[in-house]
Amino acid sequence: MKRATPEQLAACRRALAEALGGDAFRSDPDVLSDYGRDESDMGTTPADLVVLARSTAEVSQVLRTARAHKVPVTPCGARTGKSGGSMPLEGGIALSLERMKAIKSISVDDLTAVVEPGVVTGDLMKAVESKGLFYPPDPNSLEMCTLGGNVAENAGGPRALKYGVTRDYVLGLEWVLPDGEVIRVGRRTIKGVAGYDLVGLFVGSEGTLGVATEITLQLLPRPQVVQTALLVFADVRSAARAITAILSSGILPRTLELMDEVAVRAVDGKGFNFPPGTGSAVLAEVDGNEPEAVLAELARLGQVAEAHGAQETWLAQDESQREKLWAARRTLSTALRALARHKLSEDLVVPRSQIPAMIDRCKALGADLGFTVATYGHAGDGNLHANVLYDRAEDRSKVEGAIHKMAALAVELGGTITGEHGVGFAKRDLLMLEQGPSVIALQRRLKNLFDPDGLLNPGKIFPIPE
Amino acid sequence: MKRATPEQLAACRRALAEALGGDAFRSDPDVLSDYGRDESDMGTTPADLVVLARSTAEVSQVLRTARAHKVPVTPCGARTGKSGGSMPLEGGIALSLERMKAIKSISVDDLTAVVEPGVVTGDLMKAVESKGLFYPPDPNSLEMCTLGGNVAENAGGPRALKYGVTRDYVLGLEWVLPDGEVIRVGRRTIKGVAGYDLVGLFVGSEGTLGVATEITLQLLPRPQVVQTALLVFADVRSAARAITAILSSGILPRTLELMDEVAVRAVDGKGFNFPPGTGSAVLAEVDGNEPEAVLAELARLGQVAEAHGAQETWLAQDESQREKLWAARRTLSTALRALARHKLSEDLVVPRSQIPAMIDRCKALGADLGFTVATYGHAGDGNLHANVLYDRAEDRSKVEGAIHKMAALAVELGGTITGEHGVGFAKRDLLMLEQGPSVIALQRRLKNLFDPDGLLNPGKIFPIPE
Repeated sequence: MKRATPEQLAACRRALAEALGGDAFRSDPDVLSDYGRDESDMGTTPADLVVLARSTAEVSQVLRTARAHKVPVTPCGARTGKSGGSMPLEGGIALSLERMKAIKSISVDDLTAVVEPGVVTGDLMKAVESKGLFYPPDPNSLEMCTLGGNVAENAGGPRALKYGVTRDYVLGLEWVLPDGEVIRVGRRTIKGVAGYDLVGLFVGSEGTLGVATEITLQLLPRPQVVQTALLVFADVRSAARAITAILSSGILPRTLELMDEVAVRAVDGKGFNFPPGTGSAVLAEVDGNEPEAVLAELARLGQVAEAHGAQETWLAQDESQREKLWAARRTLSTALRALARHKLSEDLVVPRSQIPAMIDRCKALGADLGFTVATYGHAGDGNLHANVLYDRAEDRSKVEGAIHKMAALAVELGGTITGEHGVGFAKRDLLMLEQGPSVIALQRRLKNLFDPDGLLNPGKIFPIPE
Repeated sequence: MKRATPEQLAACRRALAEALGGDAFRSDPDVLSDYGRDESDMGTTPADLVVLARSTAEVSQVLRTARAHKVPVTPCGARTGKSGGSMPLEGGIALSLERMKAIKSISVDDLTAVVEPGVVTGDLMKAVESKGLFYPPDPNSLEMCTLGGNVAENAGGPRALKYGVTRDYVLGLEWVLPDGEVIRVGRRTIKGVAGYDLVGLFVGSEGTLGVATEITLQLLPRPQVVQTALLVFADVRSAARAITAILSSGILPRTLELMDEVAVRAVDGKGFNFPPGTGSAVLAEVDGNEPEAVLAELARLGQVAEAHGAQETWLAQDESQREKLWAARRTLSTALRALARHKLSEDLVVPRSQIPAMIDRCKALGADLGFTVATYGHAGDGNLHANVLYDRAEDRSKVEGAIHKMAALAVELGGTITGEHGVGFAKRDLLMLEQGPSVIALQRRLKNLFDPDGLLNPGKIFPIPE
């Protein structure tokens, strides 16, 4: 138990007030609660104190002071995470980076951007697009989530299929270690192999090894043409088989987003009307620089899909139709909530060839227990979000049991328990399904090397008790 | 000093002979010397014993036994490295993985391959291409080098511009820790964020944190069309500026290989005749699936180049012309050796916008000292190989001084001391130019956590003495 005593908290607070001034703090109960939860449905664990840092020096000061007083610190950004990664499980300080939101530079010649961690992902996207550049990672929450959070969780998104995830774009970091020391790791160039890949180790470390205070990102030239199509199927199984066929045919779309019949039903009529009889749909997007080539590739994609059971290929004719399709996709998680009082969602990955089997077995698992299971997600890279819908709060533990079985199934099929949401608090007890005791022990030793007191984001990633 | 005593060596050898049998060993002086050098021009440091492992169990046994007897172990593959990474600096065991060369599986549906570390990179490329797939990382030594070595050094190559480097393709590893324990890290799926990114930490760790015994690689669909052009310039400065212009125009070729006038002279007439007056050349390659689009993109690239000083764009008309161009590029390193008795080469990276400045200053540095400097390399991603040519062995230290200055210059321009060759032995004393004392100290602590006895690949990466 790492929880600080009231005396430790009070002393820490006094020291910080002196160093940072009063307006760096929030401590009214509503705010402490707000900073005690995220989008994971894992409840609320209030902080004792919220500190809104304005600079690297302040982040360093907070970590140094907290350590001196044995107070836990949990970093956070926009708190849109899905695994409880920013929940202050042991109370203490919620260290928010949301005020550090400067885009420091965007270089067209070098194809790089330097940002503070509190920059909202969508804001950076717009800023670089206005200069003809492209920042590909597109988590669903891009209108709210921050780049610091994306780095902490190694966030993905639909375009990961072609363009990879956050870590593929992080070149360098200014990083505050748990003891407050500020270091720079990585580089500003596209390539570089000097020393161990500390950037690789820090991206996705879920706020447990330190705090990013400046992020150097790689950009790409913006693809000049994007074409979007909706492929309509009778059922999710044929959709899943078509996805495998498309990818095996040599086409690499930038997205292949799957929706099963529950997901289609949830968003149908909300801005976009699916053709009658749609049992499943795939949102496919192809990009490039030559308009004819992009259209030809999308046409070929449609042919492969139709040869594998697509009933219809609906091509977005302009940006507004395209936006409607994506709006439907983006509201999906919220729309599913309207179908039942509760929802517990999973973020599983299986090798692509196992997607049909995975969907079948998730559905069967839900049916056995009497729950509806919605499956959707970035099926092109094997990343499925399986959502269990239920009405009675008292069914929660049964639903958790189903989620546990689905995670075990993903691992059994050669997959992983989390594709992009992270382990955090929500899945710390599932990690053992995927990783052996020696790999977990090795990671605990790494954590201990960086944070011997265990004060930074305690309780995350690894099973409790040790 | 980690060198084992003759008694320790003899005891270790007896124990290994009992466990592995006699034909796992080589110890005649010629072989010990062969395993004491690589392609780095850093001399020869003979091993005391060469062990050719046949399995993961044998690798584990070697590390366990060596540790028990305090004998250093240096892993190696094809010994084509350019930074002395596989040189057994303290003698002991050279642990070769060259016998472990099975391609265990290639999955068209999952776009993955599972290989042993001794598989030659070019052999895997051919095997996957015959199935319509593509393994992009293409180190220049691809006909000899092994995937285990590529993983150890995080090897790059010309195609890194569009497709990234080795680590972008490593999904999972079977890994033998320095104490002989065998673990599995990473996964078999495209995405996955469970726990710390140990794959990221191990790829590029230059044989200092453990040994890869099985590698799971991501593949891509093979692009169906590749078009290659040679852009001819009057001088290297205009070529460098044209490269920046091409990339800023939104085109992302798969390669942009630069050769300066010395490099052109070295390979001219050897299978390919450069147009008279060629002062610099850029080998540009564009790929995709739609023939017209690929040609259109290459034409656009040619236009941009000509607007920025290209005198001529020479398009390879067929595979044989294409192969001639690449053969010229691939023989470059060897051909340069013919221009002088000695050559010391650098592997520097600068932000793209700094390439012209970097080339100018490297040339000036050489001229001041009376040496010819050839610059070539993967200029599209800022990765330059600067080669100092010299005739008198006694000039070595002067040349090393020049190399040191070039590395400092790369860092000063926002770059790095190594883009793809690694730090190894050759650059361990340059690391401080790029990384501060606390970053180096942190990496030493990581090394110590994995290898407290310092017996695995001693003397690499970090400055000596500590």
